[in-house]
Amino acid sequence: MFRIGFDIGGTNIACGLINEEFEIVEKLNIPFKKDAPDAIARRLYELSKDLCNKHSTPFSNVEVIGVCIPGSIDKQRNTVLNAYNLGFHNVPFRSMIESIMGKPAMLLNDADAATLAEHRIGSLRNAKNAVLITIGTGIGGGIILNNCLFHGGRGNGIELGHIQMDVHGERCTCGRIGCIETLCSAGYLNRQAERLYFQGNAALHRYACSNNESYSAKALIDCAKEGDEACFSVWNEYLGYLSDAMASIINILDPEIIAIGGGVGNAGEFLIKGLNELIAEKCFFDDLPEIVCASLGNDAGMIGAIM
Amino acid sequence: MFRIGFDIGGTNIACGLINEEFEIVEKLNIPFKKDAPDAIARRLYELSKDLCNKHSTPFSNVEVIGVCIPGSIDKQRNTVLNAYNLGFHNVPFRSMIESIMGKPAMLLNDADAATLAEHRIGSLRNAKNAVLITIGTGIGGGIILNNCLFHGGRGNGIELGHIQMDVHGERCTCGRIGCIETLCSAGYLNRQAERLYFQGNAALHRYACSNNESYSAKALIDCAKEGDEACFSVWNEYLGYLSDAMASIINILDPEIIAIGGGVGNAGEFLIKGLNELIAEKCFFDDLPEIVCASLGNDAGMIGAIM
Repeated sequence: MFRIGFDIGGTNIACGLINEEFEIVEKLNIPFKKDAPDAIARRLYELSKDLCNKHSTPFSNVEVIGVCIPGSIDKQRNTVLNAYNLGFHNVPFRSMIESIMGKPAMLLNDADAATLAEHRIGSLRNAKNAVLITIGTGIGGGIILNNCLFHGGRGNGIELGHIQMDVHGERCTCGRIGCIETLCSAGYLNRQAERLYFQGNAALHRYACSNNESYSAKALIDCAKEGDEACFSVWNEYLGYLSDAMASIINILDPEIIAIGGGVGNAGEFLIKGLNELIAEKCFFDDLPEIVCASLGNDAGMIGAIM
Repeated sequence: MFRIGFDIGGTNIACGLINEEFEIVEKLNIPFKKDAPDAIARRLYELSKDLCNKHSTPFSNVEVIGVCIPGSIDKQRNTVLNAYNLGFHNVPFRSMIESIMGKPAMLLNDADAATLAEHRIGSLRNAKNAVLITIGTGIGGGIILNNCLFHGGRGNGIELGHIQMDVHGERCTCGRIGCIETLCSAGYLNRQAERLYFQGNAALHRYACSNNESYSAKALIDCAKEGDEACFSVWNEYLGYLSDAMASIINILDPEIIAIGGGVGNAGEFLIKGLNELIAEKCFFDDLPEIVCASLGNDAGMIGAIM
């Protein structure tokens, strides 16, 4: 038997046919176009059949559908409360999918899904208390407490990106001032790359020519790795902010391990080494948690959605 | 049968003879003088006998001794790792007390003890997920998750006062920059009161004459309550910082209720009303936790120590 997991993002829908060992046996990725929720649900049904056809397996061999969403889900996990990038507000998406597909469906926040997957088969495996921080345009994440995904004390979920770290800082997308997201997201690195690019930074301009893209967090990180002084200086300042944020999370949760996912997590040892040194200075406790990169990459959401 | 609870602070040792309904039937409070740990343990034994004599009950009617300490305790709750105000470092205080008193003893961090007591019989009663923030010279606190005191994922405890909220702020006693403690403690209000007093603030000077003390957080709060403009402005700024800190704690833990203890908690409705309005603006979730003042006051530590 199989399960099908969907990771609906603001720009793409990724989906996979997943076997009982949580291996993805078929995968599809299509652009997401804003549409009415029931039209999206029908699109997911078509994609499900496409995945089955690709694997020459009947749709009847699929027992469960899992869907993760970049937004808030109600406490019973039936309704998407707000997913701004999808334009979903108070959408009973679980029952929509179940009635269209004729199969049980599960609905989960995308960061929660990724955390479940990393905990069950990825970088957080074997940890009883752990944190995943996903660093993309925004900052999300999930918490494992006592081997279970923590949905918040009242089931509202948790918002790691919306701990304030700069009381006099910039306004965050959530309306508050100086959330972790304003200083530690890939969005922050993108803005810094843009600034350096338009100041004429030679390394970023060379990178742009050879990679056919203008400026990005990835460009800035790659140029910093190659030793460009201005990019390296921005990267060091960024590591300062990220280690500040992580030390705060450690001081309140004291986890065994923290994994960093999302695009920035791909920086690997260049990221982890700097973070470890800085966190050792800033953390209240003498024994530090392990800091690692997330291991499931972009597949974490769809795998977690069916768990 | 009775239990005896001790709350050892940097300036006083408070202790109580406590019955099976967690009522304090006798209480003593003596100045704390720095001394060798075994001398302190013998002092606790004398105080225990004094409490029993006062209540005309034999010491053999005491079944357990509980001690709470302003410092970090090891994961097995046997050893005081660091209690800077007491000068205790790596002191096996539990076994010292047990061998001198000939009774089982329990050792706990003071904020954890207060949280246990508030949860069992005080302001946090009936809550499954709750937070106590104690605002004194520093900031401490405890977390109840799923009806249990949360000792941190690895047992290191939790440090609510050492979440960073001002990345460009003042240095904290812990060595980091801009922890919650730097902006939200009574210490912050003391410093502001000192500044206004020496700028010649008339309300604080009148308060000093009638109360025979110069300046303090309490003086500043009382003058703000009575409408002094400069004191009220500092108080409003303080509420801004405290609501910022609490919104961050809510966004990561989503508790049902937060109680505020310590001296600042005595400000009552003057504190709670302002906080509720500000937190409603800043919190990520629509349904807010209840915000209340702690109800057990200075007794919370000694009661929690024997639980």
